[in-house]
Amino acid sequence: MSILVVGSVAYDTVDTPSGSRKDSLGGSAMYFSLSSSYFTGVSLLAVVGDDFDQKHVRMLESHGVDVSGLERRSGKTFRWSGVYETEDLNTRSTLDTQLNVFAEFSPKLTDAQRRHDYLFLANIDPELQLDVLGQMESRPRLVALDSMNFWIEGKKNELNAVISKVDVLFLDEGEAKEFAGQANLVKAARHIMSVGPKAVVIKRGEHGVLLFNGDSIFAAPAFPLETVVDPTGAGDSFAGGFMGYLAATDDLTPDGYRRAAALGSVMGSFCVEDFSADRIGHLSHNDIESRFREFAEISSFIPLKEGETLPKGHY
Amino acid sequence: MSILVVGSVAYDTVDTPSGSRKDSLGGSAMYFSLSSSYFTGVSLLAVVGDDFDQKHVRMLESHGVDVSGLERRSGKTFRWSGVYETEDLNTRSTLDTQLNVFAEFSPKLTDAQRRHDYLFLANIDPELQLDVLGQMESRPRLVALDSMNFWIEGKKNELNAVISKVDVLFLDEGEAKEFAGQANLVKAARHIMSVGPKAVVIKRGEHGVLLFNGDSIFAAPAFPLETVVDPTGAGDSFAGGFMGYLAATDDLTPDGYRRAAALGSVMGSFCVEDFSADRIGHLSHNDIESRFREFAEISSFIPLKEGETLPKGHY
Repeated sequence: MSILVVGSVAYDTVDTPSGSRKDSLGGSAMYFSLSSSYFTGVSLLAVVGDDFDQKHVRMLESHGVDVSGLERRSGKTFRWSGVYETEDLNTRSTLDTQLNVFAEFSPKLTDAQRRHDYLFLANIDPELQLDVLGQMESRPRLVALDSMNFWIEGKKNELNAVISKVDVLFLDEGEAKEFAGQANLVKAARHIMSVGPKAVVIKRGEHGVLLFNGDSIFAAPAFPLETVVDPTGAGDSFAGGFMGYLAATDDLTPDGYRRAAALGSVMGSFCVEDFSADRIGHLSHNDIESRFREFAEISSFIPLKEGETLPKGHY
Repeated sequence: MSILVVGSVAYDTVDTPSGSRKDSLGGSAMYFSLSSSYFTGVSLLAVVGDDFDQKHVRMLESHGVDVSGLERRSGKTFRWSGVYETEDLNTRSTLDTQLNVFAEFSPKLTDAQRRHDYLFLANIDPELQLDVLGQMESRPRLVALDSMNFWIEGKKNELNAVISKVDVLFLDEGEAKEFAGQANLVKAARHIMSVGPKAVVIKRGEHGVLLFNGDSIFAAPAFPLETVVDPTGAGDSFAGGFMGYLAATDDLTPDGYRRAAALGSVMGSFCVEDFSADRIGHLSHNDIESRFREFAEISSFIPLKEGETLPKGHY
C-alpha cells in the first residue's frame, strides 16, 4: 500500500562540528518521503516557494515520490537554520525559522490523495494535521503523527485532539516526557496511549528507540556509527523506514511493528552519516539490507532455550 | 569457576526524588559480590571499620560470599554521600567522601585468593588494582576492571598501566569519551582496545550498554523500568552479572560475552528498583530468569531469513 505524507519541504542551514551547509534540502516530509520511497509508493503533500530548485523536484521524482501534491507558491521556501554545538551532536539550537510560503499552507487533497491507506502527519501545526486527517475519504488503515515541543507548549488542546485520532505517535524522549508530564518513559508511554494511540515510538537519537505497542515493549539500540555528520532529519528518516515497512507489507502484527522500528533505526542511521539528503537519498537496496542484517546481528544474543536455566551460585 | 573481587564496602547516604537513605550498605565490591553470587562463588577483598554492622557480614555470607578477605580495621567504614537531583536520575552530585579505613587499604592476598581464575578490579586506586593483579599466582583466565573520572584525571599513567594488562574494561559513557579523548563511542572503544583490553563495555545507564569485543559489537538497551528508585550500584551490579555468567560458564566466546552483557543489564535493572541492596540482595533465581527471558523478548525482532528481502519501492 502507499503512503500520503504531509509536512515540510525546506532549505536548511546547519552548522555541525563536521562542517556547515547553507540552504541545503531539508524538511520533515522530504526526509520521510525519501526514506519510505525505498520500500513503497509515497505521495508528498507540501509547499515550496518559487525559489525551489527544480533539480530537487527531479531528485524526489527519481525516487518514485509522487510530487503532484507539492504545491509551488510565489514567495520563498521555508527556511530553518540551526547549530549542533557539541562534539556528541546531542544539543541543537535553532538560530532562525522563516516560515515563508509555509505560513499559508492549507492543502486541499485531491480524490486520489484522499484514498491513501497509510497517512503520516509529519511535524506541523496540529490544526493542519487534523484538517488533513478530516479530508481523508475514510479512516486510513494506519495514521501516524510526529510533533514537537513547540506544539506541546503552544497548542496542547489541538495536539491532544489530533493525537486522540491516530494509531502511532512518534516523539523524542524529551517531548514524550513533556507531553505526559512524567519523567519515567514507561509511564509516559502508557499515559500517551490512554489519550488514543495504540502505539508510541519514543526516539532517543544515538540511544535508540522504545516502541510501546499495547502491552508489548520493544527496545532497540541505535546502530553504532563511526561517522555522525548531521543528525538533522534522522527522526523523519526513522519514521519513513517504519511507515514504509508497514505500508509495503501491511503487516500490523506486533512482529511487523518491531521490524518496522528496526528498519526505521537503520534508515535514521544512514541519514546522519552526511548532510541533508546526501546519504539518505543515495542508497542502494543492498546497502539497506546489509545494514538491516547487521542491525539484527549487533542487537541480538542467544536467549535461554526452553528448559535451559542460568547457572546457580554456591548457596 | 569463582571470582575474586577487590573494591569498596561502604555506608552510603543518598538522596533521590523517591526518598533518602542514611548510612545504608553500599560500595562497589558489595554490589558486585551480591550480584555475582547468584551465579557462582565469589571472594570479597575489602576493608571495613569497627562500626561495620555484623548483620551486613551475615547478609553477604547468606549469599555464599567468601568474606575471609573482608578486613576489619579500627576506625570508621568508608562513607559516601550523594544526591540525584533530577527526576530522570541521570545527574548525580557527590556531597561528601570520607575514605576512613579505606585510606590505608593495602590487601595482602592469601594463597587461596591468589589462585582465582576470574578477577574483578572494582573502581579503586589504579595502583592498588595493579598491586592486586601482581599478587595473583598466575595470570587469571579473565581480568576485568572498572574505573572512574577521578582516576582518569588524577592517575592517567597508573590507570593506563593496569588497563594495559586487563581483558575487559568497564566504563560509563562519559568516562570512555574522556579516557579516549574521543566523542564517538565506536572510535573511543577502538582506542581503548588498542591500549590492551580485548573487550570494552560502555555503560550508558538507562540507555543500555555497548559491548565491543574485538571486531564484534553488541548493543543492548536497558531493561525498561517503571520504577527507578536509586541508581547507585547499578554499574557494579551489571559487572557482577556479567562476570558471574562468564565465570560460572567459562564461556568466553563472543556469544558468551553477549549473554553476559544481557545478564549484567538484568542485574543492573534490579539494583535500581530500590535503595542499597534492598532489591539486588533479595532476588530469587526465578526473578532473574524471568527477567532475563523478558529482556530477550523486549530486545529482539525477527531478522531477515536467508534469501528473504526487504520490500522494494516503486521505482
